[in-house]
Amino acid sequence: MTEAATRRRAPGSGGGAARRAERTSVRIETARFIERNIPLFEILNAEALEIIEANAEILLEEIGVNFVQNPEALARWREAGADVQGERVHIPRGLARELCAKAPARYTQMARNPEKSVEIGGNTLVCAPVYGPPFVRDLAGGRRYATMEDFRKFVKLGYMSKWLHHSGGTVCEPTDVPVNKRHLDMLLAHMTLSDKPFMGSVTEPSRAQDSVEMCEILFGQEFVQQNTVMTSLINVNSPMTFDDVMMGALEVYVRNNQACIVSPFIVGGAMAPVSVAGTLTQVLAEVMAGIGYAQLVRPGAPVIFGAFVTSIDMNSGAPTFGTPEASQILYGAGQLARRMNLPFRSGGGLCGSKLPDAQAAYETTQTLNAALLGGVNFMLHSCGWLEGGLVASFEKFVMDADQLGVLHKFAQGIAMDENAQALDAIREVGPGGHYLGCAHTQGNFKSAFWRTELFDYKPFETWDEEGARDTVSLASERVDKLMGQYQQPALDPAVTEALSAYVAEKKASMPDAFS
Amino acid sequence: MTEAATRRRAPGSGGGAARRAERTSVRIETARFIERNIPLFEILNAEALEIIEANAEILLEEIGVNFVQNPEALARWREAGADVQGERVHIPRGLARELCAKAPARYTQMARNPEKSVEIGGNTLVCAPVYGPPFVRDLAGGRRYATMEDFRKFVKLGYMSKWLHHSGGTVCEPTDVPVNKRHLDMLLAHMTLSDKPFMGSVTEPSRAQDSVEMCEILFGQEFVQQNTVMTSLINVNSPMTFDDVMMGALEVYVRNNQACIVSPFIVGGAMAPVSVAGTLTQVLAEVMAGIGYAQLVRPGAPVIFGAFVTSIDMNSGAPTFGTPEASQILYGAGQLARRMNLPFRSGGGLCGSKLPDAQAAYETTQTLNAALLGGVNFMLHSCGWLEGGLVASFEKFVMDADQLGVLHKFAQGIAMDENAQALDAIREVGPGGHYLGCAHTQGNFKSAFWRTELFDYKPFETWDEEGARDTVSLASERVDKLMGQYQQPALDPAVTEALSAYVAEKKASMPDAFS
Repeated sequence: MTEAATRRRAPGSGGGAARRAERTSVRIETARFIERNIPLFEILNAEALEIIEANAEILLEEIGVNFVQNPEALARWREAGADVQGERVHIPRGLARELCAKAPARYTQMARNPEKSVEIGGNTLVCAPVYGPPFVRDLAGGRRYATMEDFRKFVKLGYMSKWLHHSGGTVCEPTDVPVNKRHLDMLLAHMTLSDKPFMGSVTEPSRAQDSVEMCEILFGQEFVQQNTVMTSLINVNSPMTFDDVMMGALEVYVRNNQACIVSPFIVGGAMAPVSVAGTLTQVLAEVMAGIGYAQLVRPGAPVIFGAFVTSIDMNSGAPTFGTPEASQILYGAGQLARRMNLPFRSGGGLCGSKLPDAQAAYETTQTLNAALLGGVNFMLHSCGWLEGGLVASFEKFVMDADQLGVLHKFAQGIAMDENAQALDAIREVGPGGHYLGCAHTQGNFKSAFWRTELFDYKPFETWDEEGARDTVSLASERVDKLMGQYQQPALDPAVTEALSAYVAEKKASMPDAFS
Repeated sequence: MTEAATRRRAPGSGGGAARRAERTSVRIETARFIERNIPLFEILNAEALEIIEANAEILLEEIGVNFVQNPEALARWREAGADVQGERVHIPRGLARELCAKAPARYTQMARNPEKSVEIGGNTLVCAPVYGPPFVRDLAGGRRYATMEDFRKFVKLGYMSKWLHHSGGTVCEPTDVPVNKRHLDMLLAHMTLSDKPFMGSVTEPSRAQDSVEMCEILFGQEFVQQNTVMTSLINVNSPMTFDDVMMGALEVYVRNNQACIVSPFIVGGAMAPVSVAGTLTQVLAEVMAGIGYAQLVRPGAPVIFGAFVTSIDMNSGAPTFGTPEASQILYGAGQLARRMNLPFRSGGGLCGSKLPDAQAAYETTQTLNAALLGGVNFMLHSCGWLEGGLVASFEKFVMDADQLGVLHKFAQGIAMDENAQALDAIREVGPGGHYLGCAHTQGNFKSAFWRTELFDYKPFETWDEEGARDTVSLASERVDKLMGQYQQPALDPAVTEALSAYVAEKKASMPDAFS
């Protein structure tokens, strides 16, 4: 089946009931993933890149990496030609890069609504929401532990957010659901409350397997084996350690043709050297080992070169965000990924602030910009991230999501056709004139300028009379508005029923565990 | 006198009293202007640039520009070979560019403290504060008309701000001083309350002349004629109109070897076409005409290619900031300026928000980033800008000024020496280890990471116990702290006296005017 034919199918959304439901539902607009028509910012020259690449090979060969509690992985590496000493894998120069070359430069992640399938790699940028916070915050309720109801609300907000292409994964940790069962409720929410692509569970290999099985219900078994329907987050336990849980989840996904982001998770100065060049060396080595391993499990499996690197406040040890060093690392890592022809994950609306205030926005914008110009293909944490990732903020979710529109428009580049050159408009208006009424303006104003759906553009007096609201207040209103407009996307009731039955059966099969 | 020799002199700060004062004063740290060790982001390809340049020549020749109420300017243009029809100057293809080629690619603006002199052009970025707001805002007092006392407070804050290289000009409009006399008080404040470089008055040619005369008192008459001691802002009355007041001020400065920023002031869609390419064409033509004229007045006079361009909200007509179109124009204009070998002015901490909240910070950071990567050499409005430039905010001044530190560190680029490569650190720590205690971290941590002097990096619990303050609250405290630490930089009392006498005499020589 060609990709085009595949994309015309809408697996799981067929059936008369679904079509009837669709006719009565409001159509929610989602922007197509970004395709950059602009150059990238390349901070490192070729010589610097070659030094880092050479050092990464030294690291892999001489120092090696640990694959812990994973004899199968050690056996695979040994067979591939690595020197395995205990759990330490010394990878001979060139081997990891050679394995990584088997991975595709770009892949399509299918959504159940085929219009929302995304392409990851090359010139694309796919935006996904925050991942992992155990807490949520909103204006009315303050900071509190996240619940499954919060999770569902974030999935709905993501579905309603025009510039967000992806529903994400653990948009917050539903702490009121047992640890060993919450992945089932989370996946069910992504599958039924949204029709955007999503991520699978990685907290146990068995939960990755559950994720695959739920996708088989949603998309059909054959479809899942032939297409990538999940992109999941495999963190490296930096420095240079690949634990059995993460690698076990990776193995499940890779065997099933599902995509993995292999992502060093680094607080600079703690899990990597304090220098940018040293950190880039370690990031590259870790990604090469992780992706190389994925290709040993299944050559050609879709993967992403990930880099989650913060800087650190040496006074307190706190991770810091939106800093110059973090941006430098993002830019450098993007170059290293492109030289390997791999899709690249980094960035997001990262910040350390406790509130969605100015600090949060300064820090967030630094990283969103670096992600756009640094060639990120998959941007987790695009919106909603607060307090170093401890908190998912409802207001910041819609604030960041609005700013993603800026990236979309900027990435289009500058039109240079005759209409855009506008010489006739300049002739028509002339010195001292005014463009607002001219023919060119009338013909182009609707698409000329990006416009916020959140920020305040009103005159001072109007704004003052309306209550002198700050961004958080406006965002709180927007959250309520979007939730009020939310309508569940149509899904074949038989599919919904089968998914619910799967979840119920799995939950009944084991006792609750809360750690 | 060589430049180095010039810079060793500290004009106006000599004398025993000054030296005694200096010994007892606190030393305030000011960072050296930024010298970029990174590439620039170039959004337009050569073909696009050539189209815009060709169209700008068509504009100048065919449509022409107006020099209004300025027979001397018309005569100069006629003599240079332009076709002058009434007040319309048609500049034959190539003439303006040829004139612009006489301007220096880079110049030094001397400060009275020679350590704080700045170089403008090439790879440098000089940061100056907000310019022009009639209102001020702070947390305690809200929004109100600016006074001379507010002005002095901003000059002091600028003096105390490490990452700010320049004292600026009209940091706010002191509305309690008569319009025809406030420039005298403003210049006196810059000259006596700070030792950083500053800008001259442009609101009347006579006030430009007063600015030159006050500089002659501060620096010495001969010194002023041999050095550039002011960089002043000459706005073009876009589209394509050069009014007599601005051109009169330019003539005064240029004749005295003082630098002018020739800066189209454009709300996109109103004063220029709604398209980016059309706006860039007009910006280029206007700058070429303005700078070309400056070179007719005095070949070799230092000038800056300016571009202040906002986008517009087509719903309300309000100018908008931090938008993708504004960034695209900044990047494109920077490329056009570099192809002319001219210093470039654009950017700043621009925003439309009424409050120094998240909207303000999102918008501000977009433009600060574009300015850094787009090659801006002189960044007016680097800090303190609020509400579309109607308001100078004390809190936002210190917030933005802190963020300028991010630009400094990022611009240093990525070190690639052996210490930065950190292979020994990676060897020492190994898989599963921890870098905090290793020798490389101990040897490098002090300079490894940029650190805010404002934002909150504390653990949630500490932050909460301390009052759960947002960025504006922290900034308000920082304003008070800096003002508490402020000590006036030493200046020869005879110079202070002469400046005060000049101001008093000028003020007495004319009745107050308030419009």
